[in-house]
Amino acid sequence: MVGSAAVIRRQQFLIRCLGGSSAGCKNLGYTTIKMQSLMSGGGPSLEVDAISILRSITPSLDPSKHKGQAGKIAVVGGCREYTGAPYFSAISALKIGADLSHVFCTKDAATVIKSYSPELIVHPILEESYSVRDEDKKSVSAKVIQEVDKWMERFDCLVIGPGLGRDPFLLDCVSGIMKHARESNVPMVLDGDGLFLVTNCLDLVSGYPLAVLTPNVNEYKRLVQKVLQCEVNDQDGTQQLLSLAKGIGGVTILRKGGSDFISNGETVSAVSTFGSPRRCGGQGDILSGSVAVFISWARQNAVKKESSMSPTVLGCIAGSVLLRKAASHAFQSKGRSTLTTDIIEHLGRSLEEFCPVSR
Amino acid sequence: MVGSAAVIRRQQFLIRCLGGSSAGCKNLGYTTIKMQSLMSGGGPSLEVDAISILRSITPSLDPSKHKGQAGKIAVVGGCREYTGAPYFSAISALKIGADLSHVFCTKDAATVIKSYSPELIVHPILEESYSVRDEDKKSVSAKVIQEVDKWMERFDCLVIGPGLGRDPFLLDCVSGIMKHARESNVPMVLDGDGLFLVTNCLDLVSGYPLAVLTPNVNEYKRLVQKVLQCEVNDQDGTQQLLSLAKGIGGVTILRKGGSDFISNGETVSAVSTFGSPRRCGGQGDILSGSVAVFISWARQNAVKKESSMSPTVLGCIAGSVLLRKAASHAFQSKGRSTLTTDIIEHLGRSLEEFCPVSR
Repeated sequence: MVGSAAVIRRQQFLIRCLGGSSAGCKNLGYTTIKMQSLMSGGGPSLEVDAISILRSITPSLDPSKHKGQAGKIAVVGGCREYTGAPYFSAISALKIGADLSHVFCTKDAATVIKSYSPELIVHPILEESYSVRDEDKKSVSAKVIQEVDKWMERFDCLVIGPGLGRDPFLLDCVSGIMKHARESNVPMVLDGDGLFLVTNCLDLVSGYPLAVLTPNVNEYKRLVQKVLQCEVNDQDGTQQLLSLAKGIGGVTILRKGGSDFISNGETVSAVSTFGSPRRCGGQGDILSGSVAVFISWARQNAVKKESSMSPTVLGCIAGSVLLRKAASHAFQSKGRSTLTTDIIEHLGRSLEEFCPVSR
Repeated sequence: MVGSAAVIRRQQFLIRCLGGSSAGCKNLGYTTIKMQSLMSGGGPSLEVDAISILRSITPSLDPSKHKGQAGKIAVVGGCREYTGAPYFSAISALKIGADLSHVFCTKDAATVIKSYSPELIVHPILEESYSVRDEDKKSVSAKVIQEVDKWMERFDCLVIGPGLGRDPFLLDCVSGIMKHARESNVPMVLDGDGLFLVTNCLDLVSGYPLAVLTPNVNEYKRLVQKVLQCEVNDQDGTQQLLSLAKGIGGVTILRKGGSDFISNGETVSAVSTFGSPRRCGGQGDILSGSVAVFISWARQNAVKKESSMSPTVLGCIAGSVLLRKAASHAFQSKGRSTLTTDIIEHLGRSLEEFCPVSR
């Protein structure tokens, strides 16, 4: 019952977002949402598209490959206050199939994140204002950026923001890391406090096609206010999302919600597979880690059929549908008790269902 | 399907490595690979040989034995950045059947490694440059070496390198530890940054028959370049491996890859049991810990039948086949989500299958 009510609500929401008429779509190069099928309830379901995309970019497991070829991800986040978020993001990347997952965080956070799992490589290199004297800030910042730089070329994708906090000095260092990542053409997924940073300094991502922003309701609102200088308008949600992505120079935006909407300023796609009604904190971190892996794979494995969509869009669609499937499995098993850790435990099974190893 | 395709590719690779004709074997004292059986697909399988060797060196569980007689292993590794690798190596040794497993690491790493498991004995004695003043380096180094020396005689085998890092001062101390281990005739398995150290200072292991190097693709490449002053040549891989092991004075080399090749400069053996297509980081650490235990056992229990092979070669073969079996079980259970921890959980079951307690 929960499922069917949710489907109806979701469809109503989608229709609202699309402006209620096919004219609302006229500027879109590609949508995975077909108004006809939504309004009639017939036609191919949205989930089939997302699953096909996930399948098309997920590499086969080839025994001739060696360590690293299935993905090397790094999460920049974790400070005195937050340790769970970067862990969720980094471990999700491994559970989906990445070979190596790094975390760059503060010393305080590092001991804890390391202790969560021996599978992660945790670098205790970020610094917060309270631990650095004003006169040392320049040299410390240079050292932090240099430490990450040593690894930069090896990473297939960065996730910036999970549990990053808002310490001004730390964010300043992270801005430097982002500039270097961009120079090295490394894709970046921005979430949480990474979005706070970017919203206040759009130049960090503006015009960079390998940047992905994954805002929730409030983060999206702040982005719209900053970039479009207006309020969120769900009556014309699709057009506004397109305008927002265009306004930041063609970055990819994954607008999280009852349905996830994804745009790079040229196309808009939606994923509305039913996930779970639980809204426990940390699910966005699973998404950011997953999207990072799928983007890496999409850049290697995008098939011709999907070539009208960019690797960042493909990665967002795959990450979205996988999280929803895993959340659904976890909720079936744990109900109200479902936590983010439970969802992570279902990532592997969910991916196997979409994309069996033996295919 | 993945499995059978992989078997064919592996066999083709083996045939290439063996030079494609029986003449390619003429310099080998012993090979576990028979060209005939590889090319025809018939004859005794490689895995049977490796399993027989594992059985021949694994001691029976005799209730009259006391603590320590089944093996006392020490891992030298674990620094500010890395804690997972030494844990994987040390816990694998215990899971296979060693009685005691120590870790010698830095203070930063010790707290975390201790928190992974109460089963390990963790010594926070290594120091990195950043925590030692230049004028104190000599005395600190002497103290570090002395601390390990107190235990040296008790160890059946050292593993040097998992998560060791590349801090120059730390590596200098580890060089000292290695010299003392060699004087005490303690076998050493070198992996990861231990191989980095050894490649830059071959004298540490050259001519020491109880040294085992376990290079992956890149580490092997660097060794070949340093020792043979040429590039890796897979057309004549067997001969090159023999030359490399001879060139370092008869150390044992376990060349990791689709098949593992093992040589001490006199014999070449291969283990090609299918493991898993997952290449998550940490599997090399399981191998180093396992090889350390099997070498200890091989030195005690080598039976006459296998006496043409050295204990280090026997240990490598047994470690290789056990890791592959455990990886295979873990992959069957977890698929793409398989992580190193999952493989470790299957070590015991895999060893029991090869070598039942009740035999």
